[in-house]
Amino acid sequence: MDPSAAEYFVIKAKDNGVQVIGLTRGVDTKFHHTEKLDKGEVLIAQFTDHTSAVKIRGKATVLTKYGTIETDA
Amino acid sequence: MDPSAAEYFVIKAKDNGVQVIGLTRGVDTKFHHTEKLDKGEVLIAQFTDHTSAVKIRGKATVLTKYGTIETDA
Amino acid sequence: MDPSAAEYFVIKAKDNGVQVIGLTRGVDTKFHHTEKLDKGEVLIAQFTDHTSAVKIRGKATVLTKYGTIETDA
Amino acid sequence: MDPSAAEYFVIKAKDNGVQVIGLTRGVDTKFHHTEKLDKGEVLIAQFTDHTSAVKIRGKATVLTKYGTIETDA
Amino acid sequence: MDPSAAEYFVIKAKDNGVQVIGLTRGVDTKFHHTEKLDKGEVLIAQFTDHTSAVKIRGKATVLTKYGTIETDA
Amino acid sequence: MDPSAAEYFVIKAKDNGVQVIGLTRGVDTKFHHTEKLDKGEVLIAQFTDHTSAVKIRGKATVLTKYGTIETDA
Amino acid sequence: MDPSAAEYFVIKAKDNGVQVIGLTRGVDTKFHHTEKLDKGEVLIAQFTDHTSAVKIRGKATVLTKYGTIETDA
Amino acid sequence: MDPSAAEYFVIKAKDNGVQVIGLTRGVDTKFHHTEKLDKGEVLIAQFTDHTSAVKIRGKATVLTKYGTIETDA
Amino acid sequence: MDPSAAEYFVIKAKDNGVQVIGLTRGVDTKFHHTEKLDKGEVLIAQFTDHTSAVKIRGKATVLTKYGTIETDA
Amino acid sequence: MDPSAAEYFVIKAKDNGVQVIGLTRGVDTKFHHTEKLDKGEVLIAQFTDHTSAVKIRGKATVLTKYGTIETDA
Amino acid sequence: MDPSAAEYFVIKAKDNGVQVIGLTRGVDTKFHHTEKLDKGEVLIAQFTDHTSAVKIRGKATVLTKYGTIETDA
Amino acid sequence: MDPSAAEYFVIKAKDNGVQVIGLTRGVDTKFHHTEKLDKGEVLIAQFTDHTSAVKIRGKATVLTKYGTIETDA
Repeated sequence: MDPSAAEYFVIKAKDNGVQVIGLTRGVDTKFHHTEKLDKGEVLIAQFTDHTSAVKIRGKATVLTKYGTIETDA
Repeated sequence: MDPSAAEYFVIKAKDNGVQVIGLTRGVDTKFHHTEKLDKGEVLIAQFTDHTSAVKIRGKATVLTKYGTIETDA
Repeated sequence: MDPSAAEYFVIKAKDNGVQVIGLTRGVDTKFHHTEKLDKGEVLIAQFTDHTSAVKIRGKATVLTKYGTIETDA
Repeated sequence: MDPSAAEYFVIKAKDNGVQVIGLTRGVDTKFHHTEKLDKGEVLIAQFTDHTSAVKIRGKATVLTKYGTIETDA
Repeated sequence: MDPSAAEYFVIKAKDNGVQVIGLTRGVDTKFHHTEKLDKGEVLIAQFTDHTSAVKIRGKATVLTKYGTIETDA
Repeated sequence: MDPSAAEYFVIKAKDNGVQVIGLTRGVDTKFHHTEKLDKGEVLIAQFTDHTSAVKIRGKATVLTKYGTIETDA
Repeated sequence: MDPSAAEYFVIKAKDNGVQVIGLTRGVDTKFHHTEKLDKGEVLIAQFTDHTSAVKIRGKATVLTKYGTIETDA
Repeated sequence: MDPSAAEYFVIKAKDNGVQVIGLTRGVDTKFHHTEKLDKGEVLIAQFTDHTSAVKIRGKATVLTKYGTIETDA
Repeated sequence: MDPSAAEYFVIKAKDNGVQVIGLTRGVDTKFHHTEKLDKGEVLIAQFTDHTSAVKIRGKATVLTKYGTIETDA
Repeated sequence: MDPSAAEYFVIKAKDNGVQVIGLTRGVDTKFHHTEKLDKGEVLIAQFTDHTSAVKIRGKATVLTKYGTIETDA
Repeated sequence: MDPSAAEYFVIKAKDNGVQVIGLTRGVDTKFHHTEKLDKGEVLIAQFTDHTSAVKIRGKATVLTKYGTIETDA
Repeated sequence: MDPSAAEYFVIKAKDNGVQVIGLTRGVDTKFHHTEKLDKGEVLIAQFTDHTSAVKIRGKATVLTKYGTIETDA
């Protein structure tokens, strides 16, 4: 499978300073990138060879294949 | 799988100056391209070998497989 | 997968001079072709090894797998 | 995948002189063939290794997997 | 995939002299075979390595995966 | 894919002398076999490496994946 | 694909002497086997590397993926 | 595909002496095995590399993917 | 495909002494194993490289993908 | 296919001393492991390269893809 | 298939000291790991190359693709 | 399959100090990473080559393909 066909999710910031933090795939699980979103911004992001988990901090709406979940609700 | 069969999403600008920002796949996650859309323009874009995340700034409607989301709502 | 089985979308111009602009796949994202449509013309186009995004300018109806969207609405 | 299993679409001319114009796949996007249809004729055509986009000029009904669209409506 | 599993369509002539014209796949798009059908005859035909488009002239009913369309309607 | 899994269709003769004519796959499209059916007989036939089109002459009922069509109706 | 997963159909004789005639796959299409069924007997048969068409003579019920058809109805 | 994933069918004898007769796959089609079932016994059987058709004699209920059929009904 | 993903069926004995008899896959079809079930016992069994048919004797409920069938009903 | 994706079933003991007995895949079919469950315990088990059948003795609820069946009911 | 796409199930402890016991895949079936869950904890676990069965002891809710089952109910 | 297409689940902390504990895939099953979530944070995480089970401690909502489950409910 081409990596461009990987699973993705959608995050919409409901406040300034929402953090979308990528955690590394592999033996060590650590933060490797933090993307900051301001209010109203949307991020569409895939899992990659380098990212197998994503942590979301701050008020946001998260769309996944299991439905929508609100952080900080 | 052929890259031309990758996941895609659709963005329609509701205002001038909407930014669709591609973030790099791989070890480093950084901005590699910003496409600007004027009011009413539509962008249909795929994930690629180089882009695993896209950030949308400004008023826009975003169509994904999980539904439609409005930025800046 | 054969490239001829790639994802496609359909664009119908509602005015003269609609522009369908192909953006390059790969490290650099730039315009590589602009197809102009006159009122009432229809373009059926695939993503390809060279095109991973398409920008639509001018009044048009765009059919995608996520539904139909009007530019300039 | 065998090329004979590629995506196809159906075009029915509602007037004489409908043009179905094949655009080349690859680095250059240019016209490579124009098929003319007279009123009432039907063309069933696939995307191929050589054609990744098709432009339809003149009054026609176009059947695609996203539904039916009328040119010049 | 085996070529015998390719997409097919069904054509029923509603008048004598219906023409089902195969157009070549590949760099050149030209007529390579014309099958004539008399009133009431049915042709079931596949796309092949040699045929990527088919043009139908004369009164006929055409069954495709997008539905049924009448030529000359 | 195994050829025995190819697409098939079903033809029931409603009169004596129904002809089911196989047309060759490949560069040349010509008749290679005619199977005659008497009234009430049924033929279940696949596309093969040698047959990419079938023409039916005479009163018959034809079952395909797009539905049932009557010749000579 | 394993040949044992090929398409199959079911034939039930409604009279003595129903004939299920296998036609050869390949360049020549000829009879290679005739199975006779007496009233009430059922035959479940697959397409094979050797059989790409089957002709049914006599009163029978035939179950296929497109539905059930009666010979001699 | 593993042969153990082949198509199967289910036969329940409604009388003593029901015969389930395997016919050989390949160039020659002949009987290679007859399994006798007494009243109320059930046989679950697959097509195999050696069996491409099965004939059922005597009163039985046969379950296939196209539905249930009664022999001798 | 892994053999552990093969088709399976479920047999529940409604009386003591139910026999589940495996028949060999291959050129010869013969009994190779008989599993006896007492009243109320359940057997979940797959087709394997060695077993392509199973015969059930005695009062039992058999669950298959085509539904449930009672032996000796 | 990875063995970890094999078919599985779920067994819940309704009494002490329920036995879940694995039978060997291959030429010989014999017991190779007996897992005992006490009342209320649940076992989730896959078919494996070594186990192609499982026998359940004692009062239990068994969940399979064909539905739920009670032993000893 | 990647092992990370294997089947999984979900276990929620309803009491302290719930045991989720992994049984080894392969010739020998024995305990290789016991995970203890306290009241309210949730475990999401896959089958792996090393684990082909899991036994659950103590009060828990188990979510599987066949539905939800309560231990000790 | 690309690892980026593996199964994932979604965890939302309902209290501070929720622990999401990754357990190692392979012969030994042990803790290899603990991610702590504060109230309202969301974690989207995949199974990986290194993680085949995840334990969740503390008040959280867990979204899986079998539905949603609350820890500590």
